[in-house]
Amino acid sequence: MIRVGILGAKGYTAGELMRLLLDHPEARLEALMARVDEPEPVERYFPSLRGRVTQPIEPIDADALAARCDAVFLAMPHTVAQEYAPALIERGVRVIDLSADFRFESVELYETTYKVRHLAPELNARIPYGLPELWREQLKGSPAIANPGCHTITAILGLAPLMKHGDVLDLDRITINSMTGVSGGGRKPTDAFHFPECNESLKTYGVASHRHRPEIEEQLGRLRGKPLRVVFTPVLVPMTRGILSCSTVPMLQDVTTDEALAWYHETYGDEPFVRVLPKGEVPATAAVTLSNFCDIGVVADPHARALLVFSATDNLVKGASGQALQNMNLLFNLPETMGFMRQ
Amino acid sequence: MIRVGILGAKGYTAGELMRLLLDHPEARLEALMARVDEPEPVERYFPSLRGRVTQPIEPIDADALAARCDAVFLAMPHTVAQEYAPALIERGVRVIDLSADFRFESVELYETTYKVRHLAPELNARIPYGLPELWREQLKGSPAIANPGCHTITAILGLAPLMKHGDVLDLDRITINSMTGVSGGGRKPTDAFHFPECNESLKTYGVASHRHRPEIEEQLGRLRGKPLRVVFTPVLVPMTRGILSCSTVPMLQDVTTDEALAWYHETYGDEPFVRVLPKGEVPATAAVTLSNFCDIGVVADPHARALLVFSATDNLVKGASGQALQNMNLLFNLPETMGFMRQ
Amino acid sequence: MIRVGILGAKGYTAGELMRLLLDHPEARLEALMARVDEPEPVERYFPSLRGRVTQPIEPIDADALAARCDAVFLAMPHTVAQEYAPALIERGVRVIDLSADFRFESVELYETTYKVRHLAPELNARIPYGLPELWREQLKGSPAIANPGCHTITAILGLAPLMKHGDVLDLDRITINSMTGVSGGGRKPTDAFHFPECNESLKTYGVASHRHRPEIEEQLGRLRGKPLRVVFTPVLVPMTRGILSCSTVPMLQDVTTDEALAWYHETYGDEPFVRVLPKGEVPATAAVTLSNFCDIGVVADPHARALLVFSATDNLVKGASGQALQNMNLLFNLPETMGFMRQ
Amino acid sequence: MIRVGILGAKGYTAGELMRLLLDHPEARLEALMARVDEPEPVERYFPSLRGRVTQPIEPIDADALAARCDAVFLAMPHTVAQEYAPALIERGVRVIDLSADFRFESVELYETTYKVRHLAPELNARIPYGLPELWREQLKGSPAIANPGCHTITAILGLAPLMKHGDVLDLDRITINSMTGVSGGGRKPTDAFHFPECNESLKTYGVASHRHRPEIEEQLGRLRGKPLRVVFTPVLVPMTRGILSCSTVPMLQDVTTDEALAWYHETYGDEPFVRVLPKGEVPATAAVTLSNFCDIGVVADPHARALLVFSATDNLVKGASGQALQNMNLLFNLPETMGFMRQ
Repeated sequence: MIRVGILGAKGYTAGELMRLLLDHPEARLEALMARVDEPEPVERYFPSLRGRVTQPIEPIDADALAARCDAVFLAMPHTVAQEYAPALIERGVRVIDLSADFRFESVELYETTYKVRHLAPELNARIPYGLPELWREQLKGSPAIANPGCHTITAILGLAPLMKHGDVLDLDRITINSMTGVSGGGRKPTDAFHFPECNESLKTYGVASHRHRPEIEEQLGRLRGKPLRVVFTPVLVPMTRGILSCSTVPMLQDVTTDEALAWYHETYGDEPFVRVLPKGEVPATAAVTLSNFCDIGVVADPHARALLVFSATDNLVKGASGQALQNMNLLFNLPETMGFMRQ
Repeated sequence: MIRVGILGAKGYTAGELMRLLLDHPEARLEALMARVDEPEPVERYFPSLRGRVTQPIEPIDADALAARCDAVFLAMPHTVAQEYAPALIERGVRVIDLSADFRFESVELYETTYKVRHLAPELNARIPYGLPELWREQLKGSPAIANPGCHTITAILGLAPLMKHGDVLDLDRITINSMTGVSGGGRKPTDAFHFPECNESLKTYGVASHRHRPEIEEQLGRLRGKPLRVVFTPVLVPMTRGILSCSTVPMLQDVTTDEALAWYHETYGDEPFVRVLPKGEVPATAAVTLSNFCDIGVVADPHARALLVFSATDNLVKGASGQALQNMNLLFNLPETMGFMRQ
Repeated sequence: MIRVGILGAKGYTAGELMRLLLDHPEARLEALMARVDEPEPVERYFPSLRGRVTQPIEPIDADALAARCDAVFLAMPHTVAQEYAPALIERGVRVIDLSADFRFESVELYETTYKVRHLAPELNARIPYGLPELWREQLKGSPAIANPGCHTITAILGLAPLMKHGDVLDLDRITINSMTGVSGGGRKPTDAFHFPECNESLKTYGVASHRHRPEIEEQLGRLRGKPLRVVFTPVLVPMTRGILSCSTVPMLQDVTTDEALAWYHETYGDEPFVRVLPKGEVPATAAVTLSNFCDIGVVADPHARALLVFSATDNLVKGASGQALQNMNLLFNLPETMGFMRQ
Repeated sequence: MIRVGILGAKGYTAGELMRLLLDHPEARLEALMARVDEPEPVERYFPSLRGRVTQPIEPIDADALAARCDAVFLAMPHTVAQEYAPALIERGVRVIDLSADFRFESVELYETTYKVRHLAPELNARIPYGLPELWREQLKGSPAIANPGCHTITAILGLAPLMKHGDVLDLDRITINSMTGVSGGGRKPTDAFHFPECNESLKTYGVASHRHRPEIEEQLGRLRGKPLRVVFTPVLVPMTRGILSCSTVPMLQDVTTDEALAWYHETYGDEPFVRVLPKGEVPATAAVTLSNFCDIGVVADPHARALLVFSATDNLVKGASGQALQNMNLLFNLPETMGFMRQ
């Protein structure tokens, strides 16, 4: 039984981890820690878990966490993960970091994007980017995994199969519109996420400056084998969960929907969590809500000579905590689907 | 007092026209007609208008309509407008057609787009496209006006100022993502608009095939002075009203936000219904709900070398009935803002 | 032209007052004041008013407010109104107070309900409760008006016509379930109103302790001629605007829907803002959104021997700012409908 | 392995059954049937189940169903269940009927409520009402179970513990306001459930005439030991899932919250699916979404002398399919929680 700890246990991704871990046959919630003054019941933050999760949320104690856990999820804001990860890893704890701290290959890119110094650049080099569908082999046996961002994972899964088709697609002119539900903004009440402000409204945010863009570019660049730049426009949508990324890739030569779909099936084959939709269908976020699926639809637009790709995830599951659990399974040599689907 | 008739009085755009006309000092609701078997009270379809609109919705009688009205709004599906417009116009009634029947300069484009024959091509040539901000002079004195589509008007107002800057922008590679509330789908209950199906979900529709695309292309082509093709991806969003069009225009040469904003101010000057937002601000659909405004935000993205334009309207007002009323004002030489803003 | 000031100009009720006053032919927005450090543009708080309201929101200066205005709306939390109202009234400014400070006849009831001392009890005695449909004559010529609470006004308008029928109804056993949209909670972001927390959920609040209950009881007691107590259960509903009050009144003797409706028509006759629905119809909040109407439906339930009353308002209009404007009209001897409906 | 069939496989409760059965260790989806002309893939109706449920939805064949299944869920409208249940039961198939056909002890009450003849009154007498928390012993070993209505189950679980306290509570004056999400209305698109009609609105329906009232009354009467009548007012709320029942029970003598809570703990003890909340807390529907829990909060209101009870369920789970699965477990002598919670 894997003894699991969560650091940052009050946030939405932590609650989602708890929900998922309750169904995991080989893992057990052991320690929940967060910035609290004294132990608090989980149901204070997650009423749905009342009676299901009986461990309290305790004040942070890194030593105790290391002593009690085999795996720790860092569900905290960036910069905090850097602080806790090194000692946990040193003591043999497997770490899955949901923050951005170890997502970048380039420490410099991290530093310019997040406007902070990276405190553990050597460790950063040893922590792979946690997207098994693309980099599975690199993840096995690593001491820790950097879990991708929610927009990032959705956009990348949608675009990855195209990265080796730069001969027929203009990979330097990709436009990504990525619409997200409000839970992506976290639990902290702010003007932007106040119900009467965001209900019945649409608004872009982080235009030309969102911190998931460099992450997308770095990962797509790895796949392409050379750098690229993308237009990335996030939009806040009045719903709780879900991301729909609409990517537009100009064609250099004609590509049909069938040809493009073949690339997707080639890339994803039997991936358990990626569903490439049949020709003529496009994904709806509701179809992936609360699941670890990423649904992908592809449409060639010969009129405007572009390939259109639509990828949908639940931002808190495949976009965060579900992906993190899949990564934990990988670290412990368990089937990646364990806890998600009855075997 | 302009005696106003509405044909197709049961639909959402008709209800919106009634709401607006109640506040119009120079117009009076005279005849409401629709496919009903016997007169029905307006509140059966629009409970908010109970006690405010006392005329019944009557069965369609084109002769009576022509006799009783100075202006008629055709709020019916395409092909029906063609049927009624000629006789009304012949009898001197000013017609504002909210359908697509007279929106196209090219009758052929209409026919391939809507997959029907156009029955009044000569009349079509005499009916201008009703977007005063761009074609005001052509509208004055015309017998009828073709009111634009909701996605179209929102996208065009966002992109029009760029059409003469093909020297620095790649106008052949425009991508438009246009997100809309559900009321744009009309009043008829369908699976797609059933609350549990579209609530808490995002889904594209009409991908690479939406009928507003040819309309957008034809109008932008007029402004540019040569044809263009655009990627146009509509998305259904779980809210009732509002369209946010996100347009991405690749740069051929560097353009700053300030330069681009200057183009917008030059184009729209003192237009009463277009609000070009200050640098650093982007529009929210909630800010235009129930109003005839189109709010526009512009952001240059030097990193990806693209100009990003965000335009927001209420799809039932500036995107339909408000625009139609503005057009009626124009036809009758009234201030365009009459009925919208206290003078 | 009435020069109007608003104190507390950043809140939702203030924004609603501005929206309404823009259409008022005899009033002019003169001064907007709030707790700001320096003048701020209105659109910072109300993007929909961009270009429509050009006065800035200024730091509070009570002297200047009195000097510049004929009427002032106090759109501030309770206790603050007490502080500002006396001086304004003394200088001849007509005051409409949207807070609870002057709503109670009994100062003691106010003090126990709001748990603060009342600082102006003599003034309190001179300020009538602002519900013209019930107490019109007492409002005329008064120096100030206490605007009712949102749940209160909705529930009272629904129940008032029954208060003289204690012979056939058990007025000591009234149950009121009052469901409200989230804007009733004001603009301040809190956990309870954070989108992911209240979206797709229902929850009661203030059970057996809501501060609108004593106000309801005092007003109904005035109408009945003797005290009563009610069960009052507010529910937070995932929508922005609207209150639906469901009141259940046990019968002592059989009452039919027709008889009950006759009482409502007798009470409300030609009231411009109360719409008593025909037998068989029940109100929907959407039908009163953004309007000053209160829609009322009545159903006799002979099986359970109870009379059921459903009353619906927009909590920010008839439940707050619309009512306040109606009251201003009354204070200035203008038609009560002025600004709401074209005459 | 229990081979499970679902009749009426296109509806929302059927989809919910499939979702739940995928996680059930002792049951296997065997046959999905509905009114289709030819086999259709499940994802046509439930895109979330794509790749998870691979059986097609087949045209109805009652014989084949009986031959292939050990248990059958009837997820069809009333009257249809009557038609299929007898033959299935005769062939030894265990039947869980989600319709109203066998919910009533009194066939006459069924007939007056649903305005149809009951075709199998003898069978009706042998089919118990499927609420294990109240009638567990009667369910074991029965050939079939009548699954309760969604409002019913929520209201009854909230009120059951009070039924033996008629000495201190006025059980003849209970008022139930039961607010529900839109999925309760089923999958068929109608005006009432069209997104723009029900979004951002509240409206009562079935006032004084809803068919769940007689069911509530019959069940509460069983518990009480004598008949009672209740006021029952359903309200449609703009969200997809969830029911919150607010019940008001007048006191004959003073009852404290603590005393009342003790009754609830006495009734529900260790029931796995009923969570009685601590004093001072009230349930939110979001806390039970997608789970089989019923959360209950109790508040004594000494001021108005009433006991207030709030019970919350997911109308599609504890209010329908989850309850049905719990009942299947019971019929097959499995732990009732099987499939819901990892043992």
